[in-house]
Amino acid sequence: MFVADSRTLPDRAIVLFSGGLDSTTLLAMAKADGYEVFALSFDYGQRHNAELSAARSIAGASGVVEHRTIGIVLWCIGVSALTDESIDVPEAPTSGIPVTYVPARNTVFLSLAMGWAEVIEASAIYIGVNAIDYSGYPDCRPAFIDAFRALSSVATKAGVEGNPIRIEAPLLHMTKADIVTRGAELGVDYAATVSCYQATPDGRACGRCDACRLRAEGFSAAGMPDPTRYA
Amino acid sequence: MFVADSRTLPDRAIVLFSGGLDSTTLLAMAKADGYEVFALSFDYGQRHNAELSAARSIAGASGVVEHRTIGIVLWCIGVSALTDESIDVPEAPTSGIPVTYVPARNTVFLSLAMGWAEVIEASAIYIGVNAIDYSGYPDCRPAFIDAFRALSSVATKAGVEGNPIRIEAPLLHMTKADIVTRGAELGVDYAATVSCYQATPDGRACGRCDACRLRAEGFSAAGMPDPTRYA
Repeated sequence: MFVADSRTLPDRAIVLFSGGLDSTTLLAMAKADGYEVFALSFDYGQRHNAELSAARSIAGASGVVEHRTIGIVLWCIGVSALTDESIDVPEAPTSGIPVTYVPARNTVFLSLAMGWAEVIEASAIYIGVNAIDYSGYPDCRPAFIDAFRALSSVATKAGVEGNPIRIEAPLLHMTKADIVTRGAELGVDYAATVSCYQATPDGRACGRCDACRLRAEGFSAAGMPDPTRYA
Repeated sequence: MFVADSRTLPDRAIVLFSGGLDSTTLLAMAKADGYEVFALSFDYGQRHNAELSAARSIAGASGVVEHRTIGIVLWCIGVSALTDESIDVPEAPTSGIPVTYVPARNTVFLSLAMGWAEVIEASAIYIGVNAIDYSGYPDCRPAFIDAFRALSSVATKAGVEGNPIRIEAPLLHMTKADIVTRGAELGVDYAATVSCYQATPDGRACGRCDACRLRAEGFSAAGMPDPTRYA
């Protein structure tokens, strides 16, 4: 693994990377911002392990310096339709906090990324949260990102020394159409990405769940052909 | 494991519990505050696994509802004298951030505790940070606890619903003498606790490291006999 040395440039960034549409665009944006990218995925028992397979192959093709996956114990982040096969993934929009909410997920992801960032002296962490399409999740809102930025400025050695690790959330206010338009400009191959909550093992999408619906609407609104591989 | 049900009382609390002097006192304080206690330990490759053994036996004797240990991948929280045998544990006070600092440790611990707290509907998390004896760690300061409290109020379903999980840090401004005095009032058996950074496998202390020195000074200042088992 890479450890801190006396580098000058370029700066390093950790990208929270699931292999889905949003985080694959995010990774391309971090590279376009000039960073050496270290991709970080999480295996938390999500049903769609097709997503993690996609993450591995996309990371390999994207020229990241390193791609690592952390396994998260399941009991600790609890029951959710994303991890518990006894709960149905909703196929229509819901109000309130969706059943696909995973307790404290983004807090746990950012915390572990912050640890790795300190180790490799990364100056930024990119997270692909989006407040428009997923506003039902507490930890996808601007208030959450602001609170984690405040935490970052006091929680780490870098923060105490006046250089807190920056929490970058460039997708926060972008529509799905904005995201795929920006990704297309940056050359993202969306056929390789998996967004579906219940994708087949080889990565084909159901075309019916919330994630599929939002993704298809994004391509449509952007006036782009939908390259998704459907089951 | 225990999951949320329609309980009324008592409230549940998660106690971050290492089996050391501070967190064993903390656990007794949470029980004295009337909570059903769920103890949470972390295995992050720390040298002193005697501490985790002590945690298991103390938790068993303390009437906690459940005691769980989460393994944390080592590369992610990096190199520290607590986890890397090639770095010497300092045996004299140091200035600045000590080499025993583990990147983002308390942020990671609190985040995972927050996930479990949401799952079991715990209303509080107790953390045994102390700003007096360990002020060199960024994530043991009042500013860190305040920032995590602010995060807790926006990061979770409970927070959004107006009942954020409380982050209790009752040791924050207590001296080691205060802590052992309070623990003794609550009946804590300090002979069973392990604080030493380089304890023997059966839990005997070196008597020379920072943790041993602070602990011994605490008993001395409190006018109590030191029950520590030294090597």
